[in-house]
Parts: sequence; structure tokens; C-alpha cells
Amino acid sequence: MTAPRPLPDGVAGRGVPADQAAVRRGNLGRVLRLLRDEGPRSRARIAEETGLNKATVSSLVAELADRGLVTAGDVHRGGSVGRPGLPVQLDGRAVCAIGVELNVDFVAILVLNLRGEVLFEQRMALDVPALGAEATLDEVARLVQQARDTVRDAVPVGLTVAVPGLVRSVDGVVSLAPNLGWRDVPVLEGLAARLGPGCPVRVENDANLSAIAEWATGPEARTPDLVYLTGEVGVGGGLIVDGRLLRGTAGLSGEVGHTPLGDPDVVCGCGRRGCWETAVGLGALLRAAADPDDPVRDSTRDLEVRLAEIAARADAGDRRTLDALRQVGRALGTGAAVLINLVNPAVVLLGGYFAVLGRFLVEPMTAELQDRVFGPDLAGARVVLSELGFTAAVRGGAHVALETVFDDPTRVPPRAS
Amino acid sequence: MTAPRPLPDGVAGRGVPADQAAVRRGNLGRVLRLLRDEGPRSRARIAEETGLNKATVSSLVAELADRGLVTAGDVHRGGSVGRPGLPVQLDGRAVCAIGVELNVDFVAILVLNLRGEVLFEQRMALDVPALGAEATLDEVARLVQQARDTVRDAVPVGLTVAVPGLVRSVDGVVSLAPNLGWRDVPVLEGLAARLGPGCPVRVENDANLSAIAEWATGPEARTPDLVYLTGEVGVGGGLIVDGRLLRGTAGLSGEVGHTPLGDPDVVCGCGRRGCWETAVGLGALLRAAADPDDPVRDSTRDLEVRLAEIAARADAGDRRTLDALRQVGRALGTGAAVLINLVNPAVVLLGGYFAVLGRFLVEPMTAELQDRVFGPDLAGARVVLSELGFTAAVRGGAHVALETVFDDPTRVPPRAS
Repeated sequence: MTAPRPLPDGVAGRGVPADQAAVRRGNLGRVLRLLRDEGPRSRARIAEETGLNKATVSSLVAELADRGLVTAGDVHRGGSVGRPGLPVQLDGRAVCAIGVELNVDFVAILVLNLRGEVLFEQRMALDVPALGAEATLDEVARLVQQARDTVRDAVPVGLTVAVPGLVRSVDGVVSLAPNLGWRDVPVLEGLAARLGPGCPVRVENDANLSAIAEWATGPEARTPDLVYLTGEVGVGGGLIVDGRLLRGTAGLSGEVGHTPLGDPDVVCGCGRRGCWETAVGLGALLRAAADPDDPVRDSTRDLEVRLAEIAARADAGDRRTLDALRQVGRALGTGAAVLINLVNPAVVLLGGYFAVLGRFLVEPMTAELQDRVFGPDLAGARVVLSELGFTAAVRGGAHVALETVFDDPTRVPPRAS
Repeated sequence: MTAPRPLPDGVAGRGVPADQAAVRRGNLGRVLRLLRDEGPRSRARIAEETGLNKATVSSLVAELADRGLVTAGDVHRGGSVGRPGLPVQLDGRAVCAIGVELNVDFVAILVLNLRGEVLFEQRMALDVPALGAEATLDEVARLVQQARDTVRDAVPVGLTVAVPGLVRSVDGVVSLAPNLGWRDVPVLEGLAARLGPGCPVRVENDANLSAIAEWATGPEARTPDLVYLTGEVGVGGGLIVDGRLLRGTAGLSGEVGHTPLGDPDVVCGCGRRGCWETAVGLGALLRAAADPDDPVRDSTRDLEVRLAEIAARADAGDRRTLDALRQVGRALGTGAAVLINLVNPAVVLLGGYFAVLGRFLVEPMTAELQDRVFGPDLAGARVVLSELGFTAAVRGGAHVALETVFDDPTRVPPRAS
């Protein structure tokens, strides 16, 4: 029987055990984020700004350089210190992350390196509901393989799939994506099996990822409180609160489309009545703007072309088109007011078709907000049209995967010496 | 002309200037929070757990002891180190904070010390709408003075006033509190003038403070994602997301009462039609449950007595009472479903009269949630009745003021040596 090791202090059993490795990982990430957000700087300045001591900073920088995440003038391999006055900067050209979007009629992919530079981008028409989940995942895997073959000098640290529906974040199962016709589809498992080990897969709601992309890179970047609303066949919402994505307890937040704010006689794709989606989704606009045999309602035609036709009619003063846009704009305001009253964002960002037709929607939407928002001056909110177009979700997906490196830089292995 | 001082490194003009004093304040707070959340521990263990070096920890502990915020075996005044093996623990008996609530028919006060112990508590009937803002603030100032006279050995670090309405957090102006009849009332300024310097005043929405109290001390303490709904004359919402109060960009979040989910023919106190408040506020229940001359509708009588009478009628099987409770319960579910779909909390906490009559409301509410929540199994949410009763808001207010000490322990002056 061995004698018990003396405890380090007199209060055994209280608190969490110390974990030096976790502290070290946290500090590596802190330094890496500082270099990303504030630019190159000396070890001495990093020490000042983080409150870490200089020897620790030198050792952290040496490790980050070893992993190819920073370049630092004359750091020597193996942790030796180098001249502490020379600037350290973010590198990460050898590290990349992949964003994929599955939607009703396309699949898209985009690859970013750690510096946020686009290494690969592609979009492919695909009838996902008709194809079904298995064949769709085959296509996605093929597209990912093509991207990896093209981007040979950067190793992917992760892949995020954007899906228009409810995603159980813990295991990447798409619980419900009515517009894809999917229920309980194990997207993470299916893709991981197809792609093999080495590139962790996440699955996330498309509006959440779009909100992240806007927060990370758009003209409203770093707006701490931001609501993203995307108009497609369905309506998605992504909420950034205090600079962080509001995921909620089960990753099921932002589900705005089924708020009972629509006409209670209209049946939604989800089976309920009066969902907001039935008043502001693409179908609501098209039904109000055109007869069933009008080419703008032909869903086999490219959406952007059809939206351009609607805009042209509105510009030409077509009464029915203008009325339809006004009606959708008002309804957009009704739902956006609920969001503003609840989460009080600085910016409501409109994406998807809301952005494309935004110049017709914002005025009636704002009039409705003025009636409905409880706080003065729209509680400080501005309505802004997204400029990221249809790449918002894939960009957000790549950013989420890159973030894992900032959380724990040891995920990137040291380079062979 | 003086020569420019040499810059500390070669990357002038990038990033934020270092601020050693801010780093020190942050580290003092980190140590103090560790002691509060994880209990007493040695300096050596604090160093391990924070990643700070031991000399820094000893100096931080000495400063905290000097300010009366911790006790540490044998720390000597003036920053000398003491024996580093002896445990350090939170003290703060000499530091307190005050929570005050203004509501339609009462004013309440509660004083907590840094350890969360109640030092003083009082509630006083007051017809706030009839009295008006100035006379009400006079009464509050008198009550605060009484509390300070009673709690002589603890110095208040701050006071938070809870108000049922929209509060502009930056200057503590109550923009709009329809049920008090207040608009643009400078509560912070008015109280600060009455109380004199030395005890900073904040003003905050009552539901936000109640949510903070539940998060800090209730049976659902530390639930990272929590929605608090309080039923009074109006309906208030407080949202905790990821362990932090969702304030929004202008501090105007959580305004659920005016979501257009009620009967569009019913006019709300705010002047709009169909607000959710008109379906679930206290008035909606009372109108449905009793005729105008019924004593339960006599607002000059104590609310808790009237609620007990309603509960007794329901227990006795009174049809009209049971129908009214079922109707309000369903309507409660309609609005709670919107919140669950948007922010996906783990817990929906019912406060105010919703808690008192909760055993009759939860069943119809849950039935409605099952129809309305988009995610499976209510998206992981549980409905829970608050146990803090009518002290939730004042407790939350005191906690918010105490938190400023954990953010910056140098707010508490060193004790005279």
C-alpha cells in the first residue's frame, strides 16, 4: 500500500482540478486570436497585452510557429526563444477549413485558410429533395474530394455542412428540414463515413452559419448584437448576441419561420396554420405577384433570374408586383419586430431573396417596425441588406471550422522537423 | 520640442495600447470569482488554476485582503507574501449591495453582502401610479436610508432599481413603463441626487433582474440558457443566454408582452391591438375568471390573497375558474413557444402570478407547447415554477451591483491601516 500523496493545500475536495495542459491550450489560442484580431506584434507586447510573462509568451510563440500557425522572425525549432523584439504574425497558410451548403436546389462549397483567404469555391445545381439523402451525401463527398485535390498545400482542420432545418448539434443529425423532405438524417455520420478520418465534420443550421459569416467578414462585421433573416423557400433566423452565436440548449435556436404571425387559414409546409413563413417565404411573394402559369413561378428556372424579373416589373411600376412586395415587406416587419422586441439587435440583416429585393421591401418593413417595436427609435436597430449573397452560409461554415484552431491550436500537429 | 519616446516594439500603430492596471484589475476579479465559485483554496492552487505565477497571486491576494474582500491566514498588510500554503477565502462582510423594486402597488428593498447573505429586507405597499415619479423616488430614498442606517457595518457598493418597463441602461432613464404611467423618467439621476455620492445607482428592467436572481441563486442556478417570464399586470421576459443576461444593443431586450399573439380586437395598455399581454396578463385571467364586482377583481385588495382565492375556487372544481386558467395556460404556451423556437432555453421559469397559479397553468401550457414548438421534445425545454416569489427582482438587483466588485475589486477602497 502506497502512502497517499500529500495534497497541494488544505482544502481537498473543493473546486475543479487544475489542468495545466488546458491552461496552455487556452493561452496558445489567446495569443493566436490576438495576432488575428490586432495584427503582428512583438513577444514583449503580447506579454504586456495578455498579462502572461515573457518567458511563457516566447514558449507559446515557439510552439505556434512549430505548428505553422505563426511566423516569427528567428524562432528556432524546439522551443528556444529567439529575439523577443521581432514581430510575430499569423500564418496558417497550410491550414484550411471547408464550408458546404445543402439547399433545396443546389450544393455549394468554399475553402478558407486560417487567414480567411478563399482557396476554392464551387456551386452545383442539384435537386436535393428528389435525390434523397444518401445520393446527396455522395455528391457532397465527391465535391469535398475535388476541393481537397485542388487545395493540396493546405490541410483541412474541419468541415461544416449548412442545412436549412433543425440540426441536433451534438451528433449532427438533421432532425427536420421540411423543404428538403428530410427527417432524422444522420448527416455528420454519413459524411464522416464517406470522407474518412482526419477532417472532423459539423452540421449546422444555414441561417446560423450565415449570421456567423456576417459577423466575421461582412460590412457589419463585429456588430455584437445582430439578427440575420434569410428568405428562401423557408425563412431562417440566426442570432448573434454579445458577439456570440445564440445556439440555445440543443442548438435549435433561431426558428422564426413558424411563429404564428401569418393568416391562420393558410397551411404551412410544417403542417401548422398561420406560420410567419406562409406570409414572407418565397412562395408567398410569388403567389401574390404572379399567376400560377407565370414564368417567375416556374421553380425549374434559376431563382436569381426570376428575382431579377420581379425587380424589373417593380421598377416598371407594375401594380400587382409592387403590391405583393409591399405586402411581404409589411409581414417581414411584423416578424422582425418580434425579434427586435425580444433580443434588441443593433442590426437586422436581410439575406437570401430579402436582400435581392430589399430595396422594395425595406420601406414597408420599416413602417411596420415603427408601429410594432416597443422601444423608441426601433430600439436602436437598423435594417441592412446582406452583401455576401449566396455564399454567406458556406463562409460561415468554414469560419466555424477554423475557430476550432483558435480554441485549441494543438489540433494542428507540429510540422516534421 | 521633445524627441518622440521610442515605441516598445516595431509595429507601432497596430492594436490596443497595453494597460497594466486593467490587466491587474482583471486578475484581481478572476481570483475573487474563483474563491466565490469554487471555495477556499491556497495561493499555490490559485496560481495553478489561473495560470498566473505565484508571486503575482500572492500580491493579488494581499491586495484583496487589504480591501477586506478575502481573508488569508497570515497575509501582512502592504503586500508582503505570507505563508503561501494557507487557504484564502472570500470575505466581503463589510461590503454590501442594495436591490430596490418599484412596481404598480409596492416598493421593496433587499441588501446582500458579498457572500450573498441577506442583511436587510422590506416591502411596503405604495400606489406608485397615483403617487407619481418624484414622490415615489422620495419614498425609495427614505427606504434606502433606513436600510443603510440598519446595516451599519457593511458599506454599499451600489444599488439597482428594478422597474417594470423599458429602461435605457446607459443613463437609467425609464423610457416607458405603461403600468406605472411613466414615460422618460430619469430614475437614476433622481435617486443619485437624493442619495448623494458613494453608492452608484443602476436602473434595470424587473424581469431581467429576476432572471439574474434565478440564475445566481434559485434551484435552476447556473442553467446557461434560461427564459424567465413574469406575470403581473403586464408580462415581462428576461433571457439568460450562455450564462449571461441578454441585454441587447440598447438594453431593451425581453419585451415579450407586446408580441401580436392575442385577440386582434382587444386593445392593450400600450395602445396597440392584440398584444400577448392582453391574453396572459393578470387582467386577462381576472376578467375571464370573475365578474367585475367579484372581490378577486378588487385591485385595492392584496394580490396574494386574491390569487389564493382563485386557487381555492379551482381546487373546489369551479368551472369558470378552471376554464379561465386553461385559457390563460394555452395562451401562455403560444407565447412561450415563440421564445423556445427563437432562443431554445433549457428552462422556462414562470414567476409572478404564473408561479402562484402554476399548478393549474402548466398542463394547458405544455399541451400548447407540444403543438407549437418546432424542435422535438419541446427542443429540450422544461417549464419550472419560480421559488423566489416576489423577491426575485430585488435579489437580482443586489447581485448585479455586487458583480461590479468581481469585475473590478479596486472599487472597494483599502481599509485604513
